[in-house]
Amino acid sequence: MMEVSFLRGGRSVVCRRVLGWMRYLTARFSPSTKSAQGRGMLKIAIYGKGGIGKSTITSNLAAAFAVQGKRVIQIGCDPKADSTINLLGGEPLMPVMNYLRENDDDPQTIDEIAREGFGGVLCIETGGPTPGLGCAGRGIIATFNLLEDLRLFETWQPDVVLYDVLGDVVCGGFAAPIREGYAEKVLIVTSGEKMALYAANNIHTAVQNFEDRGYARVAGIILNHRNVPDETAKVQAFAREHELAIVAEIPRSDEINHFEDRGQTVIEGDPTLPVSQRFLDLATRLLAGEV
Amino acid sequence: MMEVSFLRGGRSVVCRRVLGWMRYLTARFSPSTKSAQGRGMLKIAIYGKGGIGKSTITSNLAAAFAVQGKRVIQIGCDPKADSTINLLGGEPLMPVMNYLRENDDDPQTIDEIAREGFGGVLCIETGGPTPGLGCAGRGIIATFNLLEDLRLFETWQPDVVLYDVLGDVVCGGFAAPIREGYAEKVLIVTSGEKMALYAANNIHTAVQNFEDRGYARVAGIILNHRNVPDETAKVQAFAREHELAIVAEIPRSDEINHFEDRGQTVIEGDPTLPVSQRFLDLATRLLAGEV
Repeated sequence: MMEVSFLRGGRSVVCRRVLGWMRYLTARFSPSTKSAQGRGMLKIAIYGKGGIGKSTITSNLAAAFAVQGKRVIQIGCDPKADSTINLLGGEPLMPVMNYLRENDDDPQTIDEIAREGFGGVLCIETGGPTPGLGCAGRGIIATFNLLEDLRLFETWQPDVVLYDVLGDVVCGGFAAPIREGYAEKVLIVTSGEKMALYAANNIHTAVQNFEDRGYARVAGIILNHRNVPDETAKVQAFAREHELAIVAEIPRSDEINHFEDRGQTVIEGDPTLPVSQRFLDLATRLLAGEV
Repeated sequence: MMEVSFLRGGRSVVCRRVLGWMRYLTARFSPSTKSAQGRGMLKIAIYGKGGIGKSTITSNLAAAFAVQGKRVIQIGCDPKADSTINLLGGEPLMPVMNYLRENDDDPQTIDEIAREGFGGVLCIETGGPTPGLGCAGRGIIATFNLLEDLRLFETWQPDVVLYDVLGDVVCGGFAAPIREGYAEKVLIVTSGEKMALYAANNIHTAVQNFEDRGYARVAGIILNHRNVPDETAKVQAFAREHELAIVAEIPRSDEINHFEDRGQTVIEGDPTLPVSQRFLDLATRLLAGEV
């Protein structure tokens, strides 16, 4: 399964690199992976302010699930449409909204709007509206409807689906992943910056507004360090106030930038790095149902 | 006229402080102010990424127009609804969307949704949707319709109207000020940060998408320094590429933070500061039609 998912990526450089890490990873993660077997599909929405690092976190988490042998789909729900770029060697993916604008007919196969990246992760970008026209959130809803028409989940049968969602303006469209039963767990990415915490608060409120549907819940906060003064204390205070756990802390990391400049996650670049361990540990705990 | 607009603010502390600056300001600005007399209403939309400092810039610009004797309306078009807080001594204003949610009837007078702040600037906040529900941009459109029903511009007769608009997601709603003939000049606030320039590019594209209506045009870029590496060069490159002028540069300023902690603009706090001069100069040039 693990070999298959790596080879499905179709990028020989990746395959060569990754095969070298496989023994390490298999030894490191097989107990946890085993403990998660038999569970259903894990559906996670990762929300955060634009620029806070949610795409970095989502794609590293996708890669971390993939190296544990899971079939992963990552759906970028940000008009910027670069959620998956570091799973794809730095090559941007045509967003679904662009496809729909440029073609008269809807795509007939998933290959027309998706591409497999590192570890076989299936990458999709919703994209956004033409600047100044239409509804930004509708891109998300249109994409979700299309994926249903294409019976993506039934045919592709992922173990994990990750939604990477812009949390600046949590209107109805951007709330679709938590409203319509797409995601069951919400992770909120924030730093100690005021605007990031403001967005985090809005996201939390939005999830609460739908909690009577009994579906999505905030599973925790990912503290992405920006090294602002008293950062940990500020995020801890926010977490306490909202009765949430900080489920992972990602340090400010030159290695992340280094590998992103090459269009890679740190999991692909070097999974033995301490920062890679943070993502691998979080993936393990999510699979084990501990988060 | 100048005295009236200051006293209209109704805050005695402001009046006492400001009267002290009046001789200075009158001497400093009367020629420019005079040169702008006879012009029509100046309608400016200030767009930028959330957190980039557009509210700081808009409210300082509003204050700078006010101290030049102009009747100013500032309309915050950001769901965060804190555009005008530093014109109002740090007291938040009830957003129009909150009023409409909490009351069965529309407001019958402008006083129910607006408050006069420093220099008599009339402050209005559109507000946003309940997190997770509805359309974020619709708050802007609903507010604009309401202001038309209340015949605000005809009765209040402003010299300057400033729209402070979130530029992260330039969907139809957030483009309303440039689509519907509300603003004739667009100023784009950006730093050298990647995400800020990304938003700036989207805003510019949105204005271009409506340029056949011959109304709004991008009058220039305001470079709000964040001191990222090569910041000036990055913003200059962006400006050149889009054939735009950088019409003002605002340095990173502890004084801005100092006075904002007291709920004030630097124009209110100390108009003799170099950073205050930047805003006063820009206001002068806008009034003179030089920007």
